[in-house]
Amino acid sequence: MEEKNNPKIIVPRRRFLTKAGTLAAGAALGAGALGLAGPFSSESEAKAQQALPKRPWAYKKLDPEKVRKDGYDIFHNGRDCMEGSFAAIIKSLAAEVGHPYTIIPCELAYYGGGGGMGWGTLCGSVNGSCAAMSLILGGHDNRKALRKAVNEIMGWYSTAPLPTGKTDKFGKYGKMVQSVAGTPLCHASVSNWCKESFFESHSPERSDRCARVTGDTAARAVEILNAISDNTFVAVYVPPASVSKKEGGCRSCHGRKGTLANSRGLMDCVKCHEPHEI
Amino acid sequence: MEEKNNPKIIVPRRRFLTKAGTLAAGAALGAGALGLAGPFSSESEAKAQQALPKRPWAYKKLDPEKVRKDGYDIFHNGRDCMEGSFAAIIKSLAAEVGHPYTIIPCELAYYGGGGGMGWGTLCGSVNGSCAAMSLILGGHDNRKALRKAVNEIMGWYSTAPLPTGKTDKFGKYGKMVQSVAGTPLCHASVSNWCKESFFESHSPERSDRCARVTGDTAARAVEILNAISDNTFVAVYVPPASVSKKEGGCRSCHGRKGTLANSRGLMDCVKCHEPHEI
Repeated sequence: MEEKNNPKIIVPRRRFLTKAGTLAAGAALGAGALGLAGPFSSESEAKAQQALPKRPWAYKKLDPEKVRKDGYDIFHNGRDCMEGSFAAIIKSLAAEVGHPYTIIPCELAYYGGGGGMGWGTLCGSVNGSCAAMSLILGGHDNRKALRKAVNEIMGWYSTAPLPTGKTDKFGKYGKMVQSVAGTPLCHASVSNWCKESFFESHSPERSDRCARVTGDTAARAVEILNAISDNTFVAVYVPPASVSKKEGGCRSCHGRKGTLANSRGLMDCVKCHEPHEI
Repeated sequence: MEEKNNPKIIVPRRRFLTKAGTLAAGAALGAGALGLAGPFSSESEAKAQQALPKRPWAYKKLDPEKVRKDGYDIFHNGRDCMEGSFAAIIKSLAAEVGHPYTIIPCELAYYGGGGGMGWGTLCGSVNGSCAAMSLILGGHDNRKALRKAVNEIMGWYSTAPLPTGKTDKFGKYGKMVQSVAGTPLCHASVSNWCKESFFESHSPERSDRCARVTGDTAARAVEILNAISDNTFVAVYVPPASVSKKEGGCRSCHGRKGTLANSRGLMDCVKCHEPHEI
């Protein structure tokens, strides 16, 4: 990948390495099993196909403190952060409301642990909370409310000292050091906490910290959902100056309708990029 | 948040800003609606509660080229990248296998578009593909296979020139410029492509590029799932030197059992951090 000569690019930028992944040959269509069963294990299962209920789905306001503890417990039950936060909310609704929350397979969220099986991308507790919000609010068909909810949980997670301290009473190690992630990314969140606490990134204390953050994030998601439900939701998160579209903000040039308009995102730019003169 | 004096921290590091989010007051438990309905809209719905089938679930090998086109189309149908990749796989299985894939509400994945409603975190096409993999493979109870699958799709996405070119025949703008994301993050993926192509980040061409990447990523996920199903899966992705645990790799110090052991993640470190002397 050669450097191109774009007259709009006026500041130096780091080049990304080019290392092409290899596409496996297209697999032929046919019967197979992922160490899994064949089509239907019983007639009754085949007959059990049914439509999901029409939107809007029922919602009952949940108790954030119950969800906080549930998220903590589910994490420690081996399900990690994404399934922890997702299941804490969905299983509470299954208990309070019933169908269709009873038929949501929470294992679909297991992959998100450690920012995607340890990759350190989006924190699983945020990813799982957002998935629950998307399911409950109805996704695309209620996207205005969903955008507000996702923006708030992403911003809260990026700026709040975590764990919140509301987990101290049931957490394994009593009161715990807090840190601020700066972004919704697992890598930054875990690394910052390790640097603040001096605990190692694979220590049992770090694991308990992430269990607490799982509960805290699911609880915050429930607070947001409850407020939307009550029509009392007010955004608290204030974006950093870097993502402002006003003059001096990175997005004033790099964002939509900017001079460069060559970027997308709402994470605080200066967490990974050095600020530069225009 | 003050700088702490950790004797293990031997190189300068950037401090993250401390801006505490405010926790909304805990919401009381009670009936409410997110612009949504009350508990049950009919007796029949209440009775429709049922258990999901026991694991393992059925799987049939899918045609990657069909899934590629489906992902592209679902994206352009307003569902964006995460629901696009998730639904391309799940709805194909619903057609090929039936229950329980017929009752998976794909709107749970809508939030992931643009790396989480535009936040630019984990690319939605990866997020949705991983969610589908987690659901199909069974999450925690089949975590060894899931880890391989997620690692492969994360690595492939980070290093492959995208879009692959297999979408040129149905994409709106014919043959398209490729770029390499370097990480599984939407922000880097979109920004790199804009810099290569000179198209703006909110242009219709960029949108079509992301629709193609949605199809490409779902297709790659299906290739991986098919190979796992056939017991022929071989990892192709080779991690970059930075994440190596061998001497000189960042994780040899920052990762598990390293001198610092203060970090977590598998994204290429030097995409955001400057390399430094030890």
